[in-house]
Amino acid sequence: MNLERLETLLGETFGELLQRPLAQDIKKILASGDKRLYALWLTQVAHLTKHTSLHQAMVGLRSGISHPYMKFCFEHAAEEVGHEMMAIHDLRKIGVNVKTVDDLPPPLPATTQLNSYLYYAAQNAHPNTRLGFSYWAEKCYPYIDSLASGTKSSLGLSDSHMTFFVSHAAIDEKHAADVEKIVALVCKDAKDWAAVEDGMVTSLNLAVDIFAQIYQTVTTSPGVYADFLRSLEK
Amino acid sequence: MNLERLETLLGETFGELLQRPLAQDIKKILASGDKRLYALWLTQVAHLTKHTSLHQAMVGLRSGISHPYMKFCFEHAAEEVGHEMMAIHDLRKIGVNVKTVDDLPPPLPATTQLNSYLYYAAQNAHPNTRLGFSYWAEKCYPYIDSLASGTKSSLGLSDSHMTFFVSHAAIDEKHAADVEKIVALVCKDAKDWAAVEDGMVTSLNLAVDIFAQIYQTVTTSPGVYADFLRSLEK
Amino acid sequence: MNLERLETLLGETFGELLQRPLAQDIKKILASGDKRLYALWLTQVAHLTKHTSLHQAMVGLRSGISHPYMKFCFEHAAEEVGHEMMAIHDLRKIGVNVKTVDDLPPPLPATTQLNSYLYYAAQNAHPNTRLGFSYWAEKCYPYIDSLASGTKSSLGLSDSHMTFFVSHAAIDEKHAADVEKIVALVCKDAKDWAAVEDGMVTSLNLAVDIFAQIYQTVTTSPGVYADFLRSLEK
Amino acid sequence: MNLERLETLLGETFGELLQRPLAQDIKKILASGDKRLYALWLTQVAHLTKHTSLHQAMVGLRSGISHPYMKFCFEHAAEEVGHEMMAIHDLRKIGVNVKTVDDLPPPLPATTQLNSYLYYAAQNAHPNTRLGFSYWAEKCYPYIDSLASGTKSSLGLSDSHMTFFVSHAAIDEKHAADVEKIVALVCKDAKDWAAVEDGMVTSLNLAVDIFAQIYQTVTTSPGVYADFLRSLEK
Repeated sequence: MNLERLETLLGETFGELLQRPLAQDIKKILASGDKRLYALWLTQVAHLTKHTSLHQAMVGLRSGISHPYMKFCFEHAAEEVGHEMMAIHDLRKIGVNVKTVDDLPPPLPATTQLNSYLYYAAQNAHPNTRLGFSYWAEKCYPYIDSLASGTKSSLGLSDSHMTFFVSHAAIDEKHAADVEKIVALVCKDAKDWAAVEDGMVTSLNLAVDIFAQIYQTVTTSPGVYADFLRSLEK
Repeated sequence: MNLERLETLLGETFGELLQRPLAQDIKKILASGDKRLYALWLTQVAHLTKHTSLHQAMVGLRSGISHPYMKFCFEHAAEEVGHEMMAIHDLRKIGVNVKTVDDLPPPLPATTQLNSYLYYAAQNAHPNTRLGFSYWAEKCYPYIDSLASGTKSSLGLSDSHMTFFVSHAAIDEKHAADVEKIVALVCKDAKDWAAVEDGMVTSLNLAVDIFAQIYQTVTTSPGVYADFLRSLEK
Repeated sequence: MNLERLETLLGETFGELLQRPLAQDIKKILASGDKRLYALWLTQVAHLTKHTSLHQAMVGLRSGISHPYMKFCFEHAAEEVGHEMMAIHDLRKIGVNVKTVDDLPPPLPATTQLNSYLYYAAQNAHPNTRLGFSYWAEKCYPYIDSLASGTKSSLGLSDSHMTFFVSHAAIDEKHAADVEKIVALVCKDAKDWAAVEDGMVTSLNLAVDIFAQIYQTVTTSPGVYADFLRSLEK
Repeated sequence: MNLERLETLLGETFGELLQRPLAQDIKKILASGDKRLYALWLTQVAHLTKHTSLHQAMVGLRSGISHPYMKFCFEHAAEEVGHEMMAIHDLRKIGVNVKTVDDLPPPLPATTQLNSYLYYAAQNAHPNTRLGFSYWAEKCYPYIDSLASGTKSSLGLSDSHMTFFVSHAAIDEKHAADVEKIVALVCKDAKDWAAVEDGMVTSLNLAVDIFAQIYQTVTTSPGVYADFLRSLEK
């Protein structure tokens, strides 16, 4: 494994994901001007992002890692502090009346699973594992750009309404370069690369599960989200 | 309590400390050109600094702290990664043949105590407590400048031989301003200020204990440092 | 919610699970005398059980919990230390040549997910959440007894070959009573009960995912288990 | 090092400690019927004991330790849960009106130091280090028995007033045997023994510092304990 093959694998995985019926169904809903799916996605983003800097910093506490990797972990933890407030801001822009993550409905089970896995990867798995998540999270913007621009035009939003997406796409160009640099630095043998690949594939699949649950929640089983979704129907 | 009173308290504490016979004894040894005391100090600095970014990051993981304080913790953790290597560098410049902290003799008991206290402050005490340590650690340079310049001239060292001291004095001007800003931000009531004061006084006293043990080790009870000190006598 | 309703919910959930085609398919394979499925299950059990006492003890470290709950956590952590060695013993009895968990193929993704969730529940969720897992784990034996006895007779095993199952069924009668007692003690309001229910349902669903992956691994996609499964075919 | 030599070292250390002027001064105060010193000791005991089961359990989470040592850690953690309430009970028996540790004046600095060191030993030092504390804490009763019986008679207390001391002396006979057994089991080379010895000597010295600060607080600098001590004078 090397950086090029990791990028190829990411491209293939996204290619396959975007061909699935789920991706097409989601596109249709977003294009229809129905903002519930986007709202539910922002809600999960807020629940995930609240933890990002915490599990990122935890990797920096692992014994035996190198100084550059420690530095990377703490720097990125610092940069991601409070980013859940962007999702909150964007929710407010589409009419959801919330001030903090605590005002939101609880995370979907799949969201809790991704959070659980990222803490586990940070604390218990090979110390490189969580880099697989950073890798795709920082490099996913080209792949999901059409989803985002579809959402933007159908919901009549401007960039200033979509701060999470827009500013992360911007920030993450620098971050993606940082992540590639540190991946190249910390991967010395096949086991090191396997940990990054494992972290990437596992967390990406868990993220897809979130999309599936969002879709299902909006279309058939609102569950604890019933009131939240109803408030968005007007 | 407020920032001015904290600064006054620090000045008074250092004033009192520098009047003690111990401070005078230390000055005399440093002025004599005997590098053993400086070497022992650098050794303790290395054993302390190895942990600094770790317990700093741990504060950022505490629940209930604000986003700016989290950000401060992770940023400062990132900036302090690997600074023990400066102490190692400086030890090499005075002829100590070491590559990493693991090559050094073990920490003095007082050094272990300060490390223990800083981890405890970071994980168990009021989340502001560790700021009291940062406060004096970043603002101590004016007070100990004469000790440092005495060391420099008596041992015939240049700034490039004293990277830990010189670069920290420089870095720490910015850091001291950062620490004051965050202290002002996180201290909202008397309890918050008391935590900072408590952290400052306790960790400063523990640092003085280290100086006392260094002096004692050099002058009367070398213990596990016997070989190390002998190697510096030539 | 109360203990009776929790037990009813558990019974209904197991009733539903055992009606699924998956349960029937698994029964068929076990009845056929094919030991691969049982071996793969023991392997996942070993990978899970290695962590059980750790995340159980972590709940005891949570701040704000009562003394009886702390005591329960540490006592049960103590009792479950090393139980993965029973799974290792039982694997050896069916001809798998392993000495420790490290000799086994890696956990299936679903196994890693359950481990991740249990650490997350222990450290980050409501402190009662992990009790939902203990609850079903200690009370599942009546429900899965027919699976176990089917395995026993078709593979020609005695009780001494199935130490994990048999001794846990015995130990867990006491444990189940302990868990019910502590659940009744720590659940004071609806939120407390909801945490237990959430922990039970989530971890039980994750356990079912493991069975589904075991079945799939044996029947269609051996993946990293190919060699392991082949060695069991003779 | 071996168990006999460890016991000899403990005996010599206690012999030396009990010869110090401090020990004589403390005996005099206790014999005088002045209950302030005993009250202050119980207060520190409560502040220490509140953390004992936590740092004991943390050792059990260390990676790489053996199953018997894990089991020992969690079992002893379980047995020591809530023992601070014995100190609270005994304080009430001598007229101090407190219900929990939170009602007490804050720990003396030396008490915080011992707590800090024990957490550090549990989490960061050699995993055997904390056993050195358990070793003397479980075996100290013969050495301090005369202090205790002096206190008992001069303050006119019965065994039921001194639950912390009396029941620990009883419990700790079993515990002392457990600790010796596990020390013998986990010490395989000189480094392992050195960790136990280091933990014993360091924590015992920190405990002596607590006695020194208690004596000083009662005799000359009540500080934050002024009201507490005054309330005991009647």
